[in-house]
Amino acid sequence: MLELAYINDSFIPLEKASVPINDRGYLFADGIYEVIITCNSILFGLDEHLNRLQRSADAISLELPASLDEISKIIETGIKKAGFSESMVYIQITRGVAPRRHNYSTGIQATLVMTFRARPEYAPELFNQGVAIITVPEIRWSRCDIKSTALLPNVMMKQKATDKGCQEALFVTADKIVHECTTANIFIVKNDILYTPPADRQILNGITRSFILEQAERHNIGCVEKECYYDELCQADEVFITSSTIDLMPVVKIDDFIINTGQPGPISLRVRNFFPTRT
Amino acid sequence: MLELAYINDSFIPLEKASVPINDRGYLFADGIYEVIITCNSILFGLDEHLNRLQRSADAISLELPASLDEISKIIETGIKKAGFSESMVYIQITRGVAPRRHNYSTGIQATLVMTFRARPEYAPELFNQGVAIITVPEIRWSRCDIKSTALLPNVMMKQKATDKGCQEALFVTADKIVHECTTANIFIVKNDILYTPPADRQILNGITRSFILEQAERHNIGCVEKECYYDELCQADEVFITSSTIDLMPVVKIDDFIINTGQPGPISLRVRNFFPTRT
Repeated sequence: MLELAYINDSFIPLEKASVPINDRGYLFADGIYEVIITCNSILFGLDEHLNRLQRSADAISLELPASLDEISKIIETGIKKAGFSESMVYIQITRGVAPRRHNYSTGIQATLVMTFRARPEYAPELFNQGVAIITVPEIRWSRCDIKSTALLPNVMMKQKATDKGCQEALFVTADKIVHECTTANIFIVKNDILYTPPADRQILNGITRSFILEQAERHNIGCVEKECYYDELCQADEVFITSSTIDLMPVVKIDDFIINTGQPGPISLRVRNFFPTRT
Repeated sequence: MLELAYINDSFIPLEKASVPINDRGYLFADGIYEVIITCNSILFGLDEHLNRLQRSADAISLELPASLDEISKIIETGIKKAGFSESMVYIQITRGVAPRRHNYSTGIQATLVMTFRARPEYAPELFNQGVAIITVPEIRWSRCDIKSTALLPNVMMKQKATDKGCQEALFVTADKIVHECTTANIFIVKNDILYTPPADRQILNGITRSFILEQAERHNIGCVEKECYYDELCQADEVFITSSTIDLMPVVKIDDFIINTGQPGPISLRVRNFFPTRT
């Protein structure tokens, strides 16, 4: 097993992989990305991730350097070559290498980079006991629906959460509207109904978020996409956060508020069971 | 003469310079930068640029990997080695190389990269005839005072301006408040007084902007930092934009509005003469 990178049509050990400093991803965060994990060796939501990659590319007028089919094949090959029992695939596509200036010429060839690592595992108590999160001001740009590498605000706020011993930082506007965490979407449970902020330009439309919406409908759990407020969060029966790498983690504390009994609730546990079992 | 890069304590040809893909600058735009030019072989506003670099670093809790004095010495050496008659120095500092995750450990060593290239020259007509700019919605984050590499919104809007044959794109809020261009600050002239948006968190406090404020005061030109509105812009006697690489460019057209007579005005020309002559 070996942490592997794919770059310039070759697979090489991750620690040896590099990009020119004139790559626009390095100079301008002029790029997009996806993270996909395997469950029982099957890529979770592969098509959905690739479609979102295409959508992000379109949103920044970036021409993908390979078709989604080709990217899909590289992913499969990389997973086999790396050889982990469960994998985390990272895909980053930047506008390519060119002398530094903000605007770009159309002739430039996009850079496709992937990394193949073991899927991260989280301590069981995070799921069994739930996690604490903090709220932070929404300081990000107006196009959080684009999965871009311009992640500095997310980094700053995730670090703030880490420094406080918390799992995540939740972006909340000055008007107390709840958006999402730095790396995860958020759900509220009230009277057995799920609520989550709508997938507008203020949040990234998580693949896991969509999966839960579908599954909830299939299992007759009421589910509403609507603007959510901080007060509703604190008065919720249950709160949980979702992402590809964590699937679902119950939230039992937000800032100084204990959510309900301070224990993961029944709906959170029920929804978590919709996911493929992680062995 | 050779385009040169400084990285990992060495100078190498720019086209050979690379960084690991696990550099947090590449993965997260977790970095800051400065651009400094020479005029008559003297670095323009060197101390001001270095102080701003420190300020940006502090704002994102990034420990500089070298002192400002050391950075200053590397700049001098690089300029000599590259050998251009006039230089443009680019300095980028990222949080360093680490396995990808949003939060970071304190043990990580920041990456210092510099490039040394010829100072870009602009066609004289841009200064003599003035330029056209477009306005675009303010989509950026709330900390534009930090000179970070999370520049995707600037790239997208600069490209939009380029596609329309315009020099710059000016960020204007939904409330019609004028901020700045993608790579330049903006000034309005009305009744012989200069107006420019205040250096709050919505704009980058340009070194050239500050230079103009100082020089204007010294030459008894009235100068007011205040919130500026789109209407004031269109009804201005003169408008100009400023940055380290362009110094000052008159703006004669904004969207479909011709500013005054459509020619660069006398105050713009007078202020431009405060700069060291570019030979």
